[in-house]
Amino acid sequence: MDKRTEITELGEFGLIDKITKNITNKNNTTKIGVGDDAAVIDVGKDYLLLSTDMLIEGVHFDLSYMPIQHLGYKSISINVSDIAAMNGSPEQVVVSLGLSNRFSVEAVEKLYEGMKFACNDFNVDLVGGDTTSSPAGLIISVSITGRVEKDKVALRSKVEKGDIICATGDLGGAYIGLQVLEREKQVFLANPDMQPDLKKYPYIAGRQLKPEARMDIIHELAELNVRPKAMIDISDGLASELYHLSKQSDVGFFIYEDKLPIDKQTYDTAVEFNIDPITCVMNGGEDYELLFSISQEDFEKLKNHPDIHFIGYAAEKEKGINLVTKNQNVVPIKAQGWDHFKVEG
Amino acid sequence: MDKRTEITELGEFGLIDKITKNITNKNNTTKIGVGDDAAVIDVGKDYLLLSTDMLIEGVHFDLSYMPIQHLGYKSISINVSDIAAMNGSPEQVVVSLGLSNRFSVEAVEKLYEGMKFACNDFNVDLVGGDTTSSPAGLIISVSITGRVEKDKVALRSKVEKGDIICATGDLGGAYIGLQVLEREKQVFLANPDMQPDLKKYPYIAGRQLKPEARMDIIHELAELNVRPKAMIDISDGLASELYHLSKQSDVGFFIYEDKLPIDKQTYDTAVEFNIDPITCVMNGGEDYELLFSISQEDFEKLKNHPDIHFIGYAAEKEKGINLVTKNQNVVPIKAQGWDHFKVEG
Repeated sequence: MDKRTEITELGEFGLIDKITKNITNKNNTTKIGVGDDAAVIDVGKDYLLLSTDMLIEGVHFDLSYMPIQHLGYKSISINVSDIAAMNGSPEQVVVSLGLSNRFSVEAVEKLYEGMKFACNDFNVDLVGGDTTSSPAGLIISVSITGRVEKDKVALRSKVEKGDIICATGDLGGAYIGLQVLEREKQVFLANPDMQPDLKKYPYIAGRQLKPEARMDIIHELAELNVRPKAMIDISDGLASELYHLSKQSDVGFFIYEDKLPIDKQTYDTAVEFNIDPITCVMNGGEDYELLFSISQEDFEKLKNHPDIHFIGYAAEKEKGINLVTKNQNVVPIKAQGWDHFKVEG
Repeated sequence: MDKRTEITELGEFGLIDKITKNITNKNNTTKIGVGDDAAVIDVGKDYLLLSTDMLIEGVHFDLSYMPIQHLGYKSISINVSDIAAMNGSPEQVVVSLGLSNRFSVEAVEKLYEGMKFACNDFNVDLVGGDTTSSPAGLIISVSITGRVEKDKVALRSKVEKGDIICATGDLGGAYIGLQVLEREKQVFLANPDMQPDLKKYPYIAGRQLKPEARMDIIHELAELNVRPKAMIDISDGLASELYHLSKQSDVGFFIYEDKLPIDKQTYDTAVEFNIDPITCVMNGGEDYELLFSISQEDFEKLKNHPDIHFIGYAAEKEKGINLVTKNQNVVPIKAQGWDHFKVEG
């Protein structure tokens, strides 16, 4: 009998490593293939960026609490986030939909309203796609192009020892927002007369339902004349992203617990759920903030920015990836990000 | 109560028309958006082409007779076909997979083997993607880039009255091949001791299981110095593609029944199934041949090409889309292509 290895044994990143390990590129326009937030294609004066993300009902979203317009917005926004993570600007998207017969024309129109709203916010053109039926549920696949000047592209492989590690916004909110939404759904299922109580949690519910790609940060970095050396978007939790940067840049990290940006509502709700807020930051997902490294001389230009946080620094690879706790203990950070195969597989 | 319109009432193309009708493009790099085989993006010297296709288990393929390597090959090949249909050459693909826990690592490796084989055949680089779990079945979404010199791009909107209409290869085979595969599956399900009998049908089974994008034709047209004026790939049946060309170019067509290229095995098997072979050509799908128009002066350069067939000509829009039968009757061709919503929805 043929050998059968379960995908859950390898996880998403192990599977990707395995199936892409022998790939060699043939076109001289292909500058960077598998392994960054977007592929990098030489189109002459600039680099064209290309990325893709797939959202599947029952895995990535639950329409019982996700308004379908928000889902449309999110499907575009999370792709824009991949272009932002290359220090680029988005330009075009193509959208493929798989639709079961549960979905009406009106529902698809609402989904597209959200997509168009995001396209407008991020100055992206919806230029094509594919629409087909699905045996069950909704499937959304978006591919996006972007553009970046060649000397400005930010790769995962360019962190250097001594770089300052920066994170934007705040972290952990989308994950704890999801816990609230799931709890309220269970309450509703148990007693349909009970209406979901989200009033207490507007910020974290919004973090989960309507993430904003941080193109504002990309524009501000350009205005401040700061070139992020390496960058990645925080979609699978901080720990997972640090692991990617470490692996591709051959560096280790020291991250300071007291520098991690956590919103008060995120913190309080995590405590309410009896979850360590640091766990939400490290192993939650879907914050779609940016994690990047800068050279020390650029610190002065950013130090007063209200939404950029200096959370640690890069060190020798041998040092590993570490959290410096509030009481100065140094503990290794495990790369245990959000993995749809482990959770749902 | 909110109005509910079923997608089946509109069909795939009606739905696409509805949701994309108000789209305006904001980036000056976007030359052509929704409505052709690929979007056209200005990248300086050339146009970059961008297209996407989604394949869903239970809608587009059946793994009980589709070897998974072939499926991988097909998923790339049908995307290459969209680039060919713009008179371009493919360069990069990104691949998203949704995988239920039925699929092992070994199965995914076989799927990728087929994809890599196609990438090699068509000189395409696999540069990224997304891999996630799926609640049920396999979902494959591929997006592809290509490139074409600006004065060589072939659009659906450029057929002119008097142009000669050309089709490559032969038509209807993939559809009738699917009928054979479905029949043999039913025989096997009824009696598992019976093995599928495909020996009689190697060509048409291959047309369904391993379609080849006609990049050979694109290269040959360039060598013969023929610029196809308008082009589309034949993925939904000839009638549907003629309808698209007619709509976008404002022309009508006269197509000659006795000029339609039908392989003998396709013809014989259609007769065996009691299906009109012309119906297979017109309303079958998945042939992935090319349909294009040339100016009359280019006829001489192509007239001896063994795999290009001159099936008719373009006329005034008011004339409609017509089939000239073998006994010189003129009958309107209905645009009733393969529509996954009508079939499965």
